[in-house]
Amino acid sequence: MEPLKPYKKDFEYSYALGAFPTFELLNKCPKAAKQVLVHSTFTEREKLEQLCKKLSIPVVESDKQIARLSDKENVFVIGVYDKFELSLSSDKPHLMLVNPSNMGNLGTILRTCLAMDIRDVAIIRPGVDVHNPKVVRASMGAVFSLRIQYFENFEEYKEHFPCEKPRGELDDGRRRYVYSFMLTGEKQLTAGNCPKPKLYTLCFGNEATGLPEKFAEYGEGILIPQSEDVDSLNLTIAVGIGTYLFRHHME
Amino acid sequence: MEPLKPYKKDFEYSYALGAFPTFELLNKCPKAAKQVLVHSTFTEREKLEQLCKKLSIPVVESDKQIARLSDKENVFVIGVYDKFELSLSSDKPHLMLVNPSNMGNLGTILRTCLAMDIRDVAIIRPGVDVHNPKVVRASMGAVFSLRIQYFENFEEYKEHFPCEKPRGELDDGRRRYVYSFMLTGEKQLTAGNCPKPKLYTLCFGNEATGLPEKFAEYGEGILIPQSEDVDSLNLTIAVGIGTYLFRHHME
Repeated sequence: MEPLKPYKKDFEYSYALGAFPTFELLNKCPKAAKQVLVHSTFTEREKLEQLCKKLSIPVVESDKQIARLSDKENVFVIGVYDKFELSLSSDKPHLMLVNPSNMGNLGTILRTCLAMDIRDVAIIRPGVDVHNPKVVRASMGAVFSLRIQYFENFEEYKEHFPCEKPRGELDDGRRRYVYSFMLTGEKQLTAGNCPKPKLYTLCFGNEATGLPEKFAEYGEGILIPQSEDVDSLNLTIAVGIGTYLFRHHME
Repeated sequence: MEPLKPYKKDFEYSYALGAFPTFELLNKCPKAAKQVLVHSTFTEREKLEQLCKKLSIPVVESDKQIARLSDKENVFVIGVYDKFELSLSSDKPHLMLVNPSNMGNLGTILRTCLAMDIRDVAIIRPGVDVHNPKVVRASMGAVFSLRIQYFENFEEYKEHFPCEKPRGELDDGRRRYVYSFMLTGEKQLTAGNCPKPKLYTLCFGNEATGLPEKFAEYGEGILIPQSEDVDSLNLTIAVGIGTYLFRHHME
């Protein structure tokens, strides 16, 4: 195998930097794993090698390659894997991110989705590359447990996943309802009034610009109440609160 | 005035890096402001100078000083201010952070608190310096609207703010109740079962290690439910969900 180069977006493979994300790769998505690099000082080497042996994945010791691929952070293990894109499940709730631009935020959001058991994430382009090693690392390897699919725009998404703005009474789960989190949302979300559809798509906009106004037509506008002293919540926090309420209101 | 040096913890002053945090400083905490540095290319200079004139705060143009104080980021304005510590209000809800270690996280948490209208934050040492410019910037200047007080340990906090673990029925707001967010918490928090005390302290632990076990004695243990596929929620997300529910369950 040729020496590995620092990641670029057009590569067909990427890197899970760090032991935790690499174990997630091996346990949750072993078919994509190609090779594991290990640093000579890594302390859990036996556990790692046993797992890789079972999966027939080569382990290579190379302090040099690890240093070259991992910037400045403390990285002792790197999982090399083939990039993949999985279609979303049509009968599960979705998170939609419109033009996410920050890699750390995207990773944190993916980890949060997994924690809330929302395993399907739609990304509307332009948006950060989910396989960028910074995203993979910030997600703590959650990318390996999720289905993540890119779309050019909302219309393309809707062709794949028919969906509508909720009006009046919600049905028992055959229709998919769209909720648009925006500062102009008419519905102030509280723990007591969170909608309870079976099937839904929760839409969140870009870190700086929020959701485009037309999302008020695609879905019901939802506002997470906040004091007048801030201009907006951090995107990751808004996603955390929104996904939490939609997942846990019924219990 | 001498040339300003890159921030160190033992300085008696600090910097608000960027136009937004500097305007927050000037509007919310003008008494602490000493001086404003402005870059020759800053586009809102007139607005800034008018405000500073009204407050009798000198404005100095210095591209060099801005470059030296602000690392690599796009910073066109720096507010220089005297560091301050404000005592918490005894009749308001508090957020308590035990040993927070990440500056970006602390900033995001402070911004979230302000959004949730929780304006009193206790930090148990060791903990990140809230006046570090990275925290101030990540908070988007929320530090200038909050009361933030450091304590050596929970006991010292409790001497200042008598508080207790809730048992049985809650009273009408004379007692302060403690809630400890931890993975071993017995109460699984949902939108429907969030406690509704008038006066409370919400405690969150360190990013990597969580709250020390003894916090299960200090307060009622609260678990934010999460799927088995993640080891824990990101601290900022947990604070976002916890503060949101305690603030908005009644509406």
